[in-house]
Amino acid sequence: MKNRTIFFVSDRTAITAETLGNSLMTQFAGVERERHVIPFIDSEAKAEAVRERINASYTVNEGRPLVFSTFTNDNLREILSSSDCIFYDLFNDYIARMESDLRQESSHEVGKSHGLVDKNSYESRIRAVNYALEYDDGAKLDRYDQADVILVGVSRTGKTPTSLFLALQYGIYTANFPITDSDLDNYSLPRALKPHKKKLFGLTISAEQLSRIREERRPGSPYASLRTCQREVSQVEELFQLEKVPFLNVTAISIEEIAAQIRQTRELGEKHL
Amino acid sequence: MKNRTIFFVSDRTAITAETLGNSLMTQFAGVERERHVIPFIDSEAKAEAVRERINASYTVNEGRPLVFSTFTNDNLREILSSSDCIFYDLFNDYIARMESDLRQESSHEVGKSHGLVDKNSYESRIRAVNYALEYDDGAKLDRYDQADVILVGVSRTGKTPTSLFLALQYGIYTANFPITDSDLDNYSLPRALKPHKKKLFGLTISAEQLSRIREERRPGSPYASLRTCQREVSQVEELFQLEKVPFLNVTAISIEEIAAQIRQTRELGEKHL
Repeated sequence: MKNRTIFFVSDRTAITAETLGNSLMTQFAGVERERHVIPFIDSEAKAEAVRERINASYTVNEGRPLVFSTFTNDNLREILSSSDCIFYDLFNDYIARMESDLRQESSHEVGKSHGLVDKNSYESRIRAVNYALEYDDGAKLDRYDQADVILVGVSRTGKTPTSLFLALQYGIYTANFPITDSDLDNYSLPRALKPHKKKLFGLTISAEQLSRIREERRPGSPYASLRTCQREVSQVEELFQLEKVPFLNVTAISIEEIAAQIRQTRELGEKHL
Repeated sequence: MKNRTIFFVSDRTAITAETLGNSLMTQFAGVERERHVIPFIDSEAKAEAVRERINASYTVNEGRPLVFSTFTNDNLREILSSSDCIFYDLFNDYIARMESDLRQESSHEVGKSHGLVDKNSYESRIRAVNYALEYDDGAKLDRYDQADVILVGVSRTGKTPTSLFLALQYGIYTANFPITDSDLDNYSLPRALKPHKKKLFGLTISAEQLSRIREERRPGSPYASLRTCQREVSQVEELFQLEKVPFLNVTAISIEEIAAQIRQTRELGEKHL
């Protein structure tokens, strides 16, 4: 066990190969010994050098290496597949099927998916990041009409990383705003948020984890105490229910899962061309 | 043409389905009319509701809908595949092949890839984001020994979004530091960076695009003028060459491509378990 090297190889970024390969590998625990991401293999010389690396890794480890690749170029793919490995080319496996299903030839153009095909989409992601940074933690309120979503929650519930992820990954304009003690004591949303209620999404977390996270920032403080965290979490969840703000407990889930829930709830996963 | 609806469906986040589906669709221009990302389909009732949505979209548009899915549960997958669509289940297509190739049964556990399997990895990404925010734009210098990479470049070359992307996506500790006029005039790196030369990576950009980006910030300023931008870009590239700092012109490429180049150059795409 744990005897195989995993390679993710592509003529472009290898992100697609890495994403699907990662997902598949989680179904086979204990197989992977080490991994290498090898992007930009866009010439025969480079492909041959990777073939040598793959073959070399087989002589060191017992198990045949696994290679996940996405090549649009048949020639480069064949060089890779001639190495001593178990070879999965995700494009090769689907493109021919899709050509037949769609009755349309594929463009065979290299790596358009993460290239700058859609300049507007690229720039809109950068703008969304700038927006998320400017509108982090309630710093500014003036352009909330531009927000796609406004994350709310008590301090240290992951609002900032989630905002940045939504912006970077999907170009979603995300502001975030802290819920403070005075909001909790009044059981009411901050005044600034009231006109934008349809954009709100709440993040909450277990009191234990919140306390642990806050302890890292301010050890031994009342702010980080389990008692404070218990009170804040229970009050903020009541507030979200009272004000009908959809919310999610992020204790045991990843940023990707939080983002997927927000996109779904706020209908941000739809696109009409 | 442009007559098909694309669905990305999963029992978890649908990120894997969306990533591979996106990559494949770029090879078939003009097919897609609209798209829907539908995560968390983890019950028969939900799967049946999605089947209805798929069938309904076929009655509106001429082309049969395309569905990219990642289901580990055979039952849910079969409900989806019985809809009136062209169906690609990425897990189904590979898991059986891998079981045979690896002579090992898959775990059939749902959506481990973006779940919080590896708590350390999740927390290290959040820590990396906090680090990137704290060490943005040369704001702090004290914990540069913890940095995996330090991005350098003149103002507005994409250092901040790239830092955040590396941190969020890969948990890479990324600081960034601006190269200013006085550095350029002296043709030397800022003093603070000299002990960390092995961690530096330079970003540069075409003068025209830099000027356009700066114009948005400070219209009509000398800072944004094409002349200033031409001088800065040419000086900073000379500086990078002189100091042997690897660098990348980011004019026509995406954040994913920039990140892939940095990971490769700084050997951050390797993992030994």
